[in-house]
Amino acid sequence: MTLADQPVSLAIDAMGGDSGPHYQVAGALLALAADPSLSVTLVGDLDQIKARLAQHQLSHHYAERIHLLHSETWVRMDDAPSFALRQRKNSSMHLALRLVAEGQSAACVSAGNTGALMAIGRQVLGMLPGIERPAISTVIPTRRGVSYLLDIGANVDCQAAHLVQFALMGSVMVRCVDGLPQPSVALLNVGHESIKGNAQVKLAAQRLEQHPALNYQGYIEGHAIFSGDVQLVVCDGFVGNIALKTSEGLARFLSEQIQQIFARSLYSRLVSIMARPILKRLKEQMDPVRYNGGSFLGLRGSLVKSHGNADARGFAFAIQRAAIEARQKLPEQLLRELQRDESASFD
Amino acid sequence: MTLADQPVSLAIDAMGGDSGPHYQVAGALLALAADPSLSVTLVGDLDQIKARLAQHQLSHHYAERIHLLHSETWVRMDDAPSFALRQRKNSSMHLALRLVAEGQSAACVSAGNTGALMAIGRQVLGMLPGIERPAISTVIPTRRGVSYLLDIGANVDCQAAHLVQFALMGSVMVRCVDGLPQPSVALLNVGHESIKGNAQVKLAAQRLEQHPALNYQGYIEGHAIFSGDVQLVVCDGFVGNIALKTSEGLARFLSEQIQQIFARSLYSRLVSIMARPILKRLKEQMDPVRYNGGSFLGLRGSLVKSHGNADARGFAFAIQRAAIEARQKLPEQLLRELQRDESASFD
Repeated sequence: MTLADQPVSLAIDAMGGDSGPHYQVAGALLALAADPSLSVTLVGDLDQIKARLAQHQLSHHYAERIHLLHSETWVRMDDAPSFALRQRKNSSMHLALRLVAEGQSAACVSAGNTGALMAIGRQVLGMLPGIERPAISTVIPTRRGVSYLLDIGANVDCQAAHLVQFALMGSVMVRCVDGLPQPSVALLNVGHESIKGNAQVKLAAQRLEQHPALNYQGYIEGHAIFSGDVQLVVCDGFVGNIALKTSEGLARFLSEQIQQIFARSLYSRLVSIMARPILKRLKEQMDPVRYNGGSFLGLRGSLVKSHGNADARGFAFAIQRAAIEARQKLPEQLLRELQRDESASFD
Repeated sequence: MTLADQPVSLAIDAMGGDSGPHYQVAGALLALAADPSLSVTLVGDLDQIKARLAQHQLSHHYAERIHLLHSETWVRMDDAPSFALRQRKNSSMHLALRLVAEGQSAACVSAGNTGALMAIGRQVLGMLPGIERPAISTVIPTRRGVSYLLDIGANVDCQAAHLVQFALMGSVMVRCVDGLPQPSVALLNVGHESIKGNAQVKLAAQRLEQHPALNYQGYIEGHAIFSGDVQLVVCDGFVGNIALKTSEGLARFLSEQIQQIFARSLYSRLVSIMARPILKRLKEQMDPVRYNGGSFLGLRGSLVKSHGNADARGFAFAIQRAAIEARQKLPEQLLRELQRDESASFD
């Protein structure tokens, strides 16, 4: 039996994302179809989940791989993390994470509120030693396929040791999930030259340069994120969050501008109809949902965040990602790597 | 005589940008044609400048508004700032800035190396009291026209006082250059809520909220930069540099993807030919060159940086911007605003 065939059971927060369990249930069924050794526990409002399941034709083989766990409430997208942590103790998010903490599920997938996921994940799963807050990684489409950017928002006051931790944990993740033996790593900076950067970045660069286990490539600038020259782009959570959201905002703005300009005259409307299949292909190629699933790194359990805009196919990708992390025992591998590493510890 | 008719004389670094004085000379001529009260001193290699001028038909009226100043050398795009500062003392950049320092020109425009411009500008022009390094602002196209982002790279280790200074100086600039009496200002952050952000941003927000002279609107996230909801987006130079370069990189990547996808089949090549005039209009609309000119704020003299990719038209925009700043005496207005302001001083 290969690793990919090992039975694995995941906890699915079916209520995250305010739209009810629609995409989560459909996504889970897609993932179950693609992976015969996968089973899932759908956590949420049982009436709603059962109503969704009833819309699908379930073969007998599927049905026995789906477990249900009722939750009385769920975390709203606009809940403050502290409120979600304290006032939503019986939420689907809490219960799903508790299944992982208790060893009944090997990983959790949620499309819910990132801040709440962070707070509840920390409390319920606990942190690996030396990690204060989990780092969140995201997949970025590039000229050469995909790369990862981390941290994208959890850690907004980073010291050099945090950046080294991100590089280490990200490298272990890329090795585990993508099977790349020596993923290349760069620090995001305002220039290439060694004198460039703020104090944390310069100190982190010194430590990364001397690091025996990392394939460190030096600094890259913002425009090079999309080049795919490195597999792992490491930065402060503040910077990563701004880079990611600025990119999302620009992509949306450009796409609106294209639509407006194509709608302006009869001729351009005609061209736009002709261009539709081509632009659709472009959209598919750039679609972040294709690579959906942000990993929380540094928790004592696997947690994958699905993008809030993901559809069933996107949610299925996030489940598949969580299944790989669970089979690879990613948290244990992260723990080993962090323990043998002094450069990731604080001064 | 209105302010816009006041005679103004600018120093043009004709050699910045490695491509010789081609765009600079052509851009200066465009600016002179548009502004009959403008005169310029073109600084650079006289043989090259004269050869470029000879390619244009100069009316007598033009010719007397063009002065020439020979420089033996110029700053290369890959010169380290420290090298440019010490080893290129007779460069066109040095000489052009010296014309401003000596009061012979009212502002300087250069398309040269930003780091060198920063270093030489600081040394030759000096800083306003309380300012350590000038902030660089850039224009961003948005849904509602344009906004400004600053700082975009000069200050990579910002404290709250720096961010307050950027907000103040940026507001004065927008009032002067764009004539908006109460420009709206926001801090770039990882969330809307007051608990979000790193330590500097949170402290700066407290000071900006209480500020009587600023139209402060709170936090905005990365995706909202392109909304145009605020006229001035303030951030650490590290963050601004990453946001700007990431945007430039993504725009280039998307445009390559569109070209590739349109080149893939005979049908898509046909559509692409039909779509060419429409996409050209899009490109013009988004073209940063249309709004070219990054202002250095905090120096004792006006300095405008033209984008390295600008053509003659773009360079002319940068000159027009410098002419407005010079006529408005922007550095004096910045000085007044900073002096009456305690929230912009360091603890």
